[in-house]
Amino acid sequence: MRISELSSATGVTVPSIKYYLREGLLPQGELTSANQASYADSHVQRLKLIRALIDVGGLAVATAKDVLGAIDDTSLPLTCVFGIAQRAVSDTSLYEPVEGETDGTRQVRETIDRMGWHVSSDNPGIQGAARVIDTYTRVGHPELAQIWEGYAEAAELIARADLATVARNERLEAMAETVVVGTVLGDALVSSLRRMAQEHISNLQFPAPKE
Amino acid sequence: MRISELSSATGVTVPSIKYYLREGLLPQGELTSANQASYADSHVQRLKLIRALIDVGGLAVATAKDVLGAIDDTSLPLTCVFGIAQRAVSDTSLYEPVEGETDGTRQVRETIDRMGWHVSSDNPGIQGAARVIDTYTRVGHPELAQIWEGYAEAAELIARADLATVARNERLEAMAETVVVGTVLGDALVSSLRRMAQEHISNLQFPAPKE
Repeated sequence: MRISELSSATGVTVPSIKYYLREGLLPQGELTSANQASYADSHVQRLKLIRALIDVGGLAVATAKDVLGAIDDTSLPLTCVFGIAQRAVSDTSLYEPVEGETDGTRQVRETIDRMGWHVSSDNPGIQGAARVIDTYTRVGHPELAQIWEGYAEAAELIARADLATVARNERLEAMAETVVVGTVLGDALVSSLRRMAQEHISNLQFPAPKE
Repeated sequence: MRISELSSATGVTVPSIKYYLREGLLPQGELTSANQASYADSHVQRLKLIRALIDVGGLAVATAKDVLGAIDDTSLPLTCVFGIAQRAVSDTSLYEPVEGETDGTRQVRETIDRMGWHVSSDNPGIQGAARVIDTYTRVGHPELAQIWEGYAEAAELIARADLATVARNERLEAMAETVVVGTVLGDALVSSLRRMAQEHISNLQFPAPKE
């Protein structure tokens, strides 16, 4: 199909498609003349994926390019694809390295030990969690740091669901794509469910006064 | 203390403090002369809270003002404080209303029923979850939508931990602050823990080849 048809099929404007082609997020089409190319169904699929990562997942274009590269590199072990996807969604100041050892980093390490997790020292979650815990203490709410118990169990349930879903794919290529999409969009899904569950539990425990 | 001492005590610059005073995030100090005011320990605490919400929680200044207002209004039932805090952290395009009924909104309602949750129709989580599920389908990964089971159970664990922590506070005012801080920063804590648990479980299920 032509670029105009690719645009109609995906709802992505022609200038945006040209931008993704130029930046290397979308593979070039097959040249059919000096200034015309033909695009396949795989381009439709890739474009939808690009928009999902950017519009729903909130990734920057350069970050989306990195994770798409991880999907395309079929020699990468799946654990590495996870690592790349995790780093992509952790590209905010929250996950920047904390200076030295803090109460937060100590508490994170204790939790990792207690849960029996094997986690490499450069996992971005360590920095993110330590920063949140240190902030809880700094704003005078150390009781929030005790929230660990329930959260860590929940995180393990989430990760088990993540991996079970990845394993359902039979093709390795599709697995890598599931890892990326699930990691980038899964945070939003968990936060959304947390909002619903919070409303339910808070109504049970602190019912609003009847009018 | 003077504004310069308030700045030293919190690490927030004087221009930023003046900005927060002007925007109404920080209450005015007590005037000691025509152009000098005195600030109390409560100002130190409030400034730390403002910076936590903005720097770590990623809230916009106007949004931070809304949630601080919810903390200060002691007549608000706690369930309403939760609602305001949730809406504050849901102030992104992810949570904008989905047009009409979609597969996603239907699946969200089924999950709410299955879990036995009571959730009002304007809970931002409904829109967020529906949008993620619709995106999974659109990018050709409907298997990811089946991830619900584990995620919903995990979300309930998280919400129970949230509420148990809130209930540990004895003063209502401190409770409202715990709700706001825990809701705004808790998403980041959960995401961080998910990154660690994912690494652990993916190494168990898909070990990287030994060198």
